[in-house]
Amino acid sequence: MKQIDGAVTAPKGFKAAGVRCGIKQQGTDLAIIYSEAAASAAAVFTTNAFKAASVVRNMQTIKAGLGRAIVANSGNANACTGEQGLRDVDHIRKFAGELLNVPAGQVYSASTGIIGVPLPMDKIEIGIMDAVAELDENGGGAASIAIMTTDTSPKTSAYEFEIGGVPVKIGAICKGAGMIQPNMATMLCFITSDANIEASALKKCLVSSVDRSLNSLTIDGDMSTNDSVIVLANGKSGCARIVEGTSDYDVFEKALAQVCMELAQQIARDGEGATKYVEVHAVNAGTYADAKAVAMKIANSPLVKTAIFGEDPNWGRVLCAAGGAGVNVDPSKTSLWFGDVKIVENGEPVSLDSEDARKPMLEKELRITVDLGLGTQSATAFTCDFSYDYVKINAEYHT
Amino acid sequence: MKQIDGAVTAPKGFKAAGVRCGIKQQGTDLAIIYSEAAASAAAVFTTNAFKAASVVRNMQTIKAGLGRAIVANSGNANACTGEQGLRDVDHIRKFAGELLNVPAGQVYSASTGIIGVPLPMDKIEIGIMDAVAELDENGGGAASIAIMTTDTSPKTSAYEFEIGGVPVKIGAICKGAGMIQPNMATMLCFITSDANIEASALKKCLVSSVDRSLNSLTIDGDMSTNDSVIVLANGKSGCARIVEGTSDYDVFEKALAQVCMELAQQIARDGEGATKYVEVHAVNAGTYADAKAVAMKIANSPLVKTAIFGEDPNWGRVLCAAGGAGVNVDPSKTSLWFGDVKIVENGEPVSLDSEDARKPMLEKELRITVDLGLGTQSATAFTCDFSYDYVKINAEYHT
Repeated sequence: MKQIDGAVTAPKGFKAAGVRCGIKQQGTDLAIIYSEAAASAAAVFTTNAFKAASVVRNMQTIKAGLGRAIVANSGNANACTGEQGLRDVDHIRKFAGELLNVPAGQVYSASTGIIGVPLPMDKIEIGIMDAVAELDENGGGAASIAIMTTDTSPKTSAYEFEIGGVPVKIGAICKGAGMIQPNMATMLCFITSDANIEASALKKCLVSSVDRSLNSLTIDGDMSTNDSVIVLANGKSGCARIVEGTSDYDVFEKALAQVCMELAQQIARDGEGATKYVEVHAVNAGTYADAKAVAMKIANSPLVKTAIFGEDPNWGRVLCAAGGAGVNVDPSKTSLWFGDVKIVENGEPVSLDSEDARKPMLEKELRITVDLGLGTQSATAFTCDFSYDYVKINAEYHT
Repeated sequence: MKQIDGAVTAPKGFKAAGVRCGIKQQGTDLAIIYSEAAASAAAVFTTNAFKAASVVRNMQTIKAGLGRAIVANSGNANACTGEQGLRDVDHIRKFAGELLNVPAGQVYSASTGIIGVPLPMDKIEIGIMDAVAELDENGGGAASIAIMTTDTSPKTSAYEFEIGGVPVKIGAICKGAGMIQPNMATMLCFITSDANIEASALKKCLVSSVDRSLNSLTIDGDMSTNDSVIVLANGKSGCARIVEGTSDYDVFEKALAQVCMELAQQIARDGEGATKYVEVHAVNAGTYADAKAVAMKIANSPLVKTAIFGEDPNWGRVLCAAGGAGVNVDPSKTSLWFGDVKIVENGEPVSLDSEDARKPMLEKELRITVDLGLGTQSATAFTCDFSYDYVKINAEYHT
């Protein structure tokens, strides 16, 4: 498995484009990803009860397991827009489907940006026409830029590996989970592959990959109405069909997990107002669910996150968050490290020079490890610190 | 039911004191509350897996339902202190019990402050001796001051009502849930009454009262190792025994609930860095649990809290938090008010002048009402906004 360039257009048989249609104040704001051949499709969506119109429709059509194109816009989330929102999504799918000569039901749409405001459909139509005209085998980078909202840089990942001696690729673009533009933003992630894999196996791979990466990511614990991860696999690599329970499946899953992990890390690094990238490793838990609950509770704690911003080795806040996760935690078996420095052993502070404890806090990247001493299961949460700028960005924006 | 002065010494047969023994840098830091007669006792404690030594011991002895005294110190939480912490609590209970001539098992202890550091027992012994010597029928105010950590003002409440024509009183003191001194602080609440009520009935009253008040309170979603609510009822009013299922019980429960509610409101108003007091009312939910989950999810959302600090009527963040609560929410039936201004009706924004929407945000107190349109159950969460000062207080403190 080796890292390659090209994002969603790295795999064979995919084209993409990113254009400006004028939804945002500036910059490109509409992307299309297109597969030249029929592709298996799978997706994971927000569990928020308030789902954007695009998510509602995507959830209906993804059941068939087929996809040919993704149309994504930034600048307007088309959320809390009622029946009008659904009609607009239907029109986008039909309009793009006709231009691309693919069934409307195999066109997925995604939106991110302002909520409660109908999409400017005249602009979107022009954007779709322009993007279709500009579809290119090297368009992955342009697409990654067109889906950005408050992201400070585009986010991409691509890997090549072999299935039965045949080179296979996975590529992806995503945008961040900082929540701002103007009411909230969204995590959007689009993944392509030229692997030959059935939709049900693809879905299984995706769910496990996302669970340990994009769903283990938190900036502020809030969940958007639009969060979507969509994957298309078109088989254009010519590799043999990847079937569950085989070593080929394991290879594919490993690559997909790696791509999702890198995107999660990129999003955490680019969290709103973030000054530090933070990984919380909960290890030796009784169950994976317990490990994940502890890691996420620590990663979501405003007290922990402000302490990290203040470069303070405040182990009490970390233990307190771990103990409040509502899962099996035994204080007398719990140990804690900041970086490589052991701070707490079996629930009690290690005698330590305070400068030694503080040293890992001064770095731009912090690894917190909580050893629960109850089993063998581990989980990692990806996050960032909580700075004045987080409050500034989120308090000073006015709807 | 009428509001009265006097806090924990308002009810008959209680004395209290607050003294300085030198745990904190300055101010009084040790309080004793004492009942002259045998009293029923009930309590609610933190559910954090990391429980302070005092909480561990209190949970053991409260089962007998009897209490005569509470010894509380500020400045040191005696948490993450292992076996030494437990030995220190045992000594405090025995030492105070001997001076007060009551069984050690009927002395409860509580601590708040720095964690991971053993209690300075020499100072605590002197403090207990001084406090016992100073116990006074008007000592409730002094006790309320001695338990403060980062609170900017002492918090008390007291009410008088009648049971069968006999005047009965409930009094209380508490300290806030802002989390700082230095690793975390704690919600401590001590309630006294001269009502005549069995421990099991008292416990039932306390649980329901706390659930809708102190357990519906959030400053930052973190839960301390030391949170404790302890109530003693000594029967000195001379009223008839209060029994479950009677109108007397309802009267007592109503008064206890009112006391707990006022304390919760006082704590929310005094949240770290708070510039606004916020009540989130979730109404017409299918179940009380759903209503509480929605109210708490909104009250805990950093995005909602920073928007309130920025005086921005950011209804999208509120709906998004409601939808992320993981309970039964139907967007098409959900409506939202800021103060008396309806912002969202059945999941879509009401057409509204933006200045009208913003008006309630400019007040020092904000009421957010979410109508779920699914039933008849309601819940209220008490909180405050999230300001630069929250980050400042919590980032700039160094362990």
